[in-house]
Amino acid sequence: MSKRVITISREFGSGGRAIGKMVADKLGVKFYDRELIQLVAKESGFALDFVEETGEYSSTSSLLYNLSVGGIYTQGAFSPETLPPADKVQILQNNIIRELAEKEPCVIVGRSADYILRERTDCLNVFIHADMAHKVKRAVELYNISPKSPEKILAKKDKARASQYRRYTDQVWGMADNYHLTLDSGVFGLEKCCDIIVALAR
Amino acid sequence: MSKRVITISREFGSGGRAIGKMVADKLGVKFYDRELIQLVAKESGFALDFVEETGEYSSTSSLLYNLSVGGIYTQGAFSPETLPPADKVQILQNNIIRELAEKEPCVIVGRSADYILRERTDCLNVFIHADMAHKVKRAVELYNISPKSPEKILAKKDKARASQYRRYTDQVWGMADNYHLTLDSGVFGLEKCCDIIVALAR
Repeated sequence: MSKRVITISREFGSGGRAIGKMVADKLGVKFYDRELIQLVAKESGFALDFVEETGEYSSTSSLLYNLSVGGIYTQGAFSPETLPPADKVQILQNNIIRELAEKEPCVIVGRSADYILRERTDCLNVFIHADMAHKVKRAVELYNISPKSPEKILAKKDKARASQYRRYTDQVWGMADNYHLTLDSGVFGLEKCCDIIVALAR
Repeated sequence: MSKRVITISREFGSGGRAIGKMVADKLGVKFYDRELIQLVAKESGFALDFVEETGEYSSTSSLLYNLSVGGIYTQGAFSPETLPPADKVQILQNNIIRELAEKEPCVIVGRSADYILRERTDCLNVFIHADMAHKVKRAVELYNISPKSPEKILAKKDKARASQYRRYTDQVWGMADNYHLTLDSGVFGLEKCCDIIVALAR
């Protein structure tokens, strides 16, 4: 296919993860969501939960990200050993994402992968969103989100993702310009979103 | 088709207008871009250039828009006759857009039509963008934009559109959440963007 790597960013409850899995299955390529967290946990030695939280919601400074992205660590100016755990996880996660993209075609969910892989021309960057009603329904049914004011929980999750993206990329999470394609899964449904992504990736 | 009205918002030079025309032709529905300006000019008595500039780049306050959208004018609390010309054009344009959408299936380019028609469930709201290199190439070739720092001219155009959208809608122009679909025409090309929109509208 013309786009080897598909990155899926998504609002919480929009079904972006499920769409990503369907896309990977249809294209017959690897899928990295929880699998990515496991890889990072294994290589870093940190607990799964810590890696999961840190990789998408942490409050690490953008300076550290930019240093790691800029490759200053690899030039020996800083020592990764002395970094706080969250920064170590981030840097390791970024490196693993770059290695996975280099190795073989795949679908990667979240973790600012669109930005981490921005130098590649073989990525299709997708953002999935939906109206609050669709997201709440899905989140309550599938993710054990309390049906008592679930809107607040969802908004908080997305706010943390947006903050993380902002710190790391200096861009606005969810701005069309950052993605090749954005889709409202509440209007189109998951199947159709999958079909469009597959058609555009091929 | 399931979506009667397609609104196309677009970055300057992204080919959004051309895509909209192709979509309208394929679906066999009316197309409103310059045609909309002509309608507003005819009904208002203002010059075409003034209507064109005012309808997408004016600096009118959001208060007036909101009043017109809220229908306070129609309740007689304010008199449209005493309004500044730019406000008259805006209110007339909004009314015409609503009438067009009500009348028959169509494609409407720009003018915050996605927001003006937000209460309708039969709209497909699309945003078209592209990287600067693609936009500059198109703008210099087709719109007589000076090849001397065209980036500045394009950025200024989009900034004005974004400001207008912000004032009117209190939303961020180009945020994925405001549209059902956003597409990078620089990566996919105009034809493919058209095909996706047509497939999703049907």
